[in-house]
Amino acid sequence: MTTIRCGLILTVALAGVNGYSADTNSPEQIAACLAAKALTNSSAMEIITDLTTEIGPRLDGSEAEKRAADWAKKRLEQIGFDKVWIETFPLEHGWVRGIEKAEVIGPSPQPLILTALGGSVPTPDDGIEAEIALFKTYDELLAMPAGSLKGKIAVVTQRMVRAQDGAGYHFAGKIRAAGPSEAARRGAVAYLLRSLGTDGRRVPHTGGTHYAEDAPRIPAAALSASDAEQLERLFDKCAPVKVKLVLTPRVLGPVTSQNVIGEIKGCEKPDEIVLLGAHLDSWDLGTGAIDDGAGVAIVTAASKLIHDLPQRPKRTIRVVLYGSEETGLHGGIAYAKAHQAELEHLVIVAEPDLGQGPIYKMDTGVANPDEPSLKRILTALTPLGVLSGNNESHGSSDVGPLSEAHVPVVEFDMDATDYFDLHHTPEDTLDKIQPSRINQSTAVYAVFAYLAAELDGDYRAPAPKSVK
Amino acid sequence: MTTIRCGLILTVALAGVNGYSADTNSPEQIAACLAAKALTNSSAMEIITDLTTEIGPRLDGSEAEKRAADWAKKRLEQIGFDKVWIETFPLEHGWVRGIEKAEVIGPSPQPLILTALGGSVPTPDDGIEAEIALFKTYDELLAMPAGSLKGKIAVVTQRMVRAQDGAGYHFAGKIRAAGPSEAARRGAVAYLLRSLGTDGRRVPHTGGTHYAEDAPRIPAAALSASDAEQLERLFDKCAPVKVKLVLTPRVLGPVTSQNVIGEIKGCEKPDEIVLLGAHLDSWDLGTGAIDDGAGVAIVTAASKLIHDLPQRPKRTIRVVLYGSEETGLHGGIAYAKAHQAELEHLVIVAEPDLGQGPIYKMDTGVANPDEPSLKRILTALTPLGVLSGNNESHGSSDVGPLSEAHVPVVEFDMDATDYFDLHHTPEDTLDKIQPSRINQSTAVYAVFAYLAAELDGDYRAPAPKSVK
Repeated sequence: MTTIRCGLILTVALAGVNGYSADTNSPEQIAACLAAKALTNSSAMEIITDLTTEIGPRLDGSEAEKRAADWAKKRLEQIGFDKVWIETFPLEHGWVRGIEKAEVIGPSPQPLILTALGGSVPTPDDGIEAEIALFKTYDELLAMPAGSLKGKIAVVTQRMVRAQDGAGYHFAGKIRAAGPSEAARRGAVAYLLRSLGTDGRRVPHTGGTHYAEDAPRIPAAALSASDAEQLERLFDKCAPVKVKLVLTPRVLGPVTSQNVIGEIKGCEKPDEIVLLGAHLDSWDLGTGAIDDGAGVAIVTAASKLIHDLPQRPKRTIRVVLYGSEETGLHGGIAYAKAHQAELEHLVIVAEPDLGQGPIYKMDTGVANPDEPSLKRILTALTPLGVLSGNNESHGSSDVGPLSEAHVPVVEFDMDATDYFDLHHTPEDTLDKIQPSRINQSTAVYAVFAYLAAELDGDYRAPAPKSVK
Repeated sequence: MTTIRCGLILTVALAGVNGYSADTNSPEQIAACLAAKALTNSSAMEIITDLTTEIGPRLDGSEAEKRAADWAKKRLEQIGFDKVWIETFPLEHGWVRGIEKAEVIGPSPQPLILTALGGSVPTPDDGIEAEIALFKTYDELLAMPAGSLKGKIAVVTQRMVRAQDGAGYHFAGKIRAAGPSEAARRGAVAYLLRSLGTDGRRVPHTGGTHYAEDAPRIPAAALSASDAEQLERLFDKCAPVKVKLVLTPRVLGPVTSQNVIGEIKGCEKPDEIVLLGAHLDSWDLGTGAIDDGAGVAIVTAASKLIHDLPQRPKRTIRVVLYGSEETGLHGGIAYAKAHQAELEHLVIVAEPDLGQGPIYKMDTGVANPDEPSLKRILTALTPLGVLSGNNESHGSSDVGPLSEAHVPVVEFDMDATDYFDLHHTPEDTLDKIQPSRINQSTAVYAVFAYLAAELDGDYRAPAPKSVK
């Protein structure tokens, strides 16, 4: 009978009548209403459309990221959040992309398509010309002795594996993060990798890299999948392959970024907070639709649905739209630091940052996975197609630093089968967003946030011993 | 029993025994052998792999196109063509791409991805900044009075329709070819169109444009589908949208291009020629795999299969790998002119230039569509999945000028459903080629060429009157 009662609630709510009574509707019934509404509602699509159209790309520390923050603050206010504010934090330095050109000089002259890794140092203005040393696995590069790549451009063409849970990215991450310094230690003058991506196209994927303190900083860029395969074919002919590389990114001085925070106050326990995160910054190449405009739209639209209920849940729902995630979780770290004194008020936290969904599994990182309300939440999510996962989560992205500080986390696993076809590329644009997928994710977050705010679960207490 | 006899023929051929007799195998049986071999043979894949890897992009008039011609001459010689030669012809001017950058300046600053149309004049070095006038159909632009676009950048975002026979390209062609001059006549300072393509991605499609004599020459470029839709959304907000455009292509002085020609002499009527064409040049953005490396591979591999038969067909098979197709059929026109005296020796001509296939229909453009050998050819192609089409063909691409000179043509319609997802983009690379598709097309061309060279059909004679 949930559906019928749901219709009643919504009718009453829409009519603005105060006859609604929480007593007559269980939390699960209200959650089912939220889910039903999320699946057909246009809020998430409207939010992501406006963010990616009116702002577009929003690299951290940039003017565009500040415009995005102002846009977000206004949007949360329009929705009716009780309190909305911006918290600014410093970034050691900004970074902007420049020219990025590469070509095979010999033996088969032709252009290559690549893009600089975030944070890469530039080449000299007239570029670097050098023979390549190509490795089809990262381990082959690591097996090379010091000095063995002297004067060469190291190229790693290891493929990233497609996996529903994004495990391929996890395993390949070090090729981008640590590869440039590993190549430099062995004498390389520049570093190229096959883009961390699951597509087979002519589109390079950017992403941050991290220079080690004890290695020379060499220019680093990601080849498109097609270009990496072209280099493999040329290299396999066993004649020396010479490449010219021009990268002119610039490191800026200190800049600032910011987190945008909004609250829907709880009606009984306003000091207890269910926190939903997402990050507002994006890489510069696309318009940040799947990464992480989708997350922004999901948590904002889910909160709006809860805000629009005739009666608020007991606890406060706080949305944090983080800045500067892409270049090192700076927003998440700044938030955890600035809010250290109130971390104990955070009941549970969650963040979508793996695309538009659908969400297919619920993991937790809590002290007491047997807490009965978790089972009630999972049961309420079952009709949406959500499986039970494990209790090994450390939280995704920006809520990771909170998990490290022992704040309970939930992680809703999004189907990432096609996520890494688009991730960090110019193709990360609005036209890739499918209403049915982003709405399912919004429904999951709405149900979760509502029940976590309503059900009085305590996820910090140690798990009760089971009596046999 | 075709299969068994086919095995016998091939065995005999491989053993190098001279006991083969054409009398014991019908032309249809030999054609079936050719088809069976083409479907599993690796020749077409080897040819397209080497061309797109060792040469890569080969814009007409470029050094790379000349390298491609040398490569092709050597390849035909290696296969064992009896005679291979290169015919050079002049091009009025060359053209090379330069910087191509665009951005929305206001009200929502963000970059746009586009590419210059082939032949476009440059903007000033510091670009053009202007308000856009956006038209969702080309007819809306045409309906504007003279002078009404003064100082504006005209943008046409009409979508190209996906169709198996490529009809969408045919209908949309004028938007690219004539649009710049139509916009200029109305006062526009630059012209942008939504790429002529069926994909919805962030990848612009280049292609030639044609400036009319009586209109100012304005810079012209193609937006990616995603960027065209982004501009539509911004334009629909009804605030003026201002765009900055920088294009720095250069028009070079007179250059040359060339056709590569190879012959497998007929054993009985060497002066009667079945001509198979394809074009060797490609746009500069990709490596010319589907356009038209595939065509080159199909006709070359089909000819190789016929060459490798124990006995030659009666007529000569001539392969022409044309230069400079993309910027105006220059190779096809030069060939028709240079060979005017021998056009009557051309029995029939065909050219694949719509991707890798599969081929699904056979059209003709002949004086006597009831010629019995055409029916025999079609019957032999039926097992490969080829339908009977019409007699309205004027030949595709480079053989068009021959059709105009009343040379009989066959046109094998290739399934172009996904061709315009890749056409004229950086995505036109080897990894898009599927052996099963290119091999089917090779089988069709091998069967056609063999039977046309063996069956004595005369496609120039007037159709016999049917007696009722």
